[in-house]
Amino acid sequence: MPDVIVVGGGPAGISAAIYLRRFKRDVLVLMKDFGALGKAESIENYYGFPEPVTGVELLGRGIAQAERLGVKVAREEVLSIESDEAFTVKTDQGVYHANAVLLSTGMTRVNLKVKHYADFIGRGVSFCAVCDGFLHRQKKIGIVGSGDFMLEELEILRNFSSDLTVFTNGESLKHRPDQVVIVTEPLLELIGSDHLEGVKTQGQTVSLDVLFVAVGTASAADFALRIGAMMERNQIVIDATFMTNIPGLFAAGDCIGGLQQVAKAVADGAGAGIAIHKYLKTLTS
Amino acid sequence: MPDVIVVGGGPAGISAAIYLRRFKRDVLVLMKDFGALGKAESIENYYGFPEPVTGVELLGRGIAQAERLGVKVAREEVLSIESDEAFTVKTDQGVYHANAVLLSTGMTRVNLKVKHYADFIGRGVSFCAVCDGFLHRQKKIGIVGSGDFMLEELEILRNFSSDLTVFTNGESLKHRPDQVVIVTEPLLELIGSDHLEGVKTQGQTVSLDVLFVAVGTASAADFALRIGAMMERNQIVIDATFMTNIPGLFAAGDCIGGLQQVAKAVADGAGAGIAIHKYLKTLTS
Repeated sequence: MPDVIVVGGGPAGISAAIYLRRFKRDVLVLMKDFGALGKAESIENYYGFPEPVTGVELLGRGIAQAERLGVKVAREEVLSIESDEAFTVKTDQGVYHANAVLLSTGMTRVNLKVKHYADFIGRGVSFCAVCDGFLHRQKKIGIVGSGDFMLEELEILRNFSSDLTVFTNGESLKHRPDQVVIVTEPLLELIGSDHLEGVKTQGQTVSLDVLFVAVGTASAADFALRIGAMMERNQIVIDATFMTNIPGLFAAGDCIGGLQQVAKAVADGAGAGIAIHKYLKTLTS
Repeated sequence: MPDVIVVGGGPAGISAAIYLRRFKRDVLVLMKDFGALGKAESIENYYGFPEPVTGVELLGRGIAQAERLGVKVAREEVLSIESDEAFTVKTDQGVYHANAVLLSTGMTRVNLKVKHYADFIGRGVSFCAVCDGFLHRQKKIGIVGSGDFMLEELEILRNFSSDLTVFTNGESLKHRPDQVVIVTEPLLELIGSDHLEGVKTQGQTVSLDVLFVAVGTASAADFALRIGAMMERNQIVIDATFMTNIPGLFAAGDCIGGLQQVAKAVADGAGAGIAIHKYLKTLTS
């Protein structure tokens, strides 16, 4: 069992992992891909690089640095995080436990580009099956998404209703779930008056009581929401030690707000790494 | 006239200069030497470097990066900073003006290793000729130091007294000032009861009313003190935009407290660079 699981392999997570490893902590970094920074063609404002670097190059250098120090970096997509005596982190490839978790997946929240989508957020559009599923027992439930994160949410929703429709919104499904209706046409419009009543695609109108959004990969904000961590304007609320209101759950980088810059994420990571090390010491003393 | 003068060429100052330059600001960085970081033999916790780097190498890379973007970096020792309509920055080689100044010289304050030194701080030991010189008109004034910073302070003290003794504390003088007593023996002890009464060296006891300390190079804290910027426990107090209580005077890096880490200094610099750019816009609108 590692001491710490870091979710996200960007500058914040890797910087924290480096600090933790130098305190002799066992650190497991779980990352799906290179995220938003991986798309940066030229970074020239991060101190220490006389020539511009690509996002992919900088991310690769960070990972190599962490691995050289003994950090384990695994390319696995985190699907859920649960907090009990220790944290349980489930990925597409396994289940891990640790006494502390750092959320550092950036701040991606995929917003649907669908007419009237924003109008129904909180009025029939939900982002968390664990949080809101119970409110919709035996109702007509829709879920948008096509990857493992959607499937994870779908399994939770099966506890509450059997009237389930998956909308892939034009994407192809990685795994095809059983006992659900699957609509692959792109969503065109959400319909309803005060509350969501359904969705329209090119070919049909589907009546719904609630639509859960689980597009792409779960973000730090998604995990925070599910585990009950305080959020403010889609940012995770932390204290001076980068800890959320859940003991042992930390967050750093873009997902806590502030400058969306590599420099700031790296500094967050350094601070969080030091703070997590101190936190772990309190558990053993 | 540059838009901004950055005092200090370490990670905080250079990171700020890079950000400012990318906003098309003219930036002049003034630095004496590589400071404390220049002595680091191996840095392996700053994100982005798979192999350890020396402090000198990292500092050199940062300066090269800034220069490539068009920042001017000059190896000059800053002796004084004054605030009027614009800032006037005097170095050992020239005088410069700018609308904004960033203090980022780290947190070096040379403490004297002399018996009873700490006992007389604020009771006869002073750090600022401009601040305290007037209180000691026609008194017996001593000053410790051997470089240009000491000479700068000495010139100010000449306005208040002609009874001046320079203690080089074993160092050799860069320039020999006129019309002062010069004691080159190392200081052994400060003497007095409630208040400083003199200093002892190996060979003599010199009676003094006040001893000004101007050892080595002026630090950010020294400049802040002289210009009236608020300090707390030897750290410069800044607001959320890295600005001190003096409009246009900013500070970043170790001199504002927090983690004494490259990562944190770099992030400070990024934040300060962005804030200074915004501040300069308010001057022209």
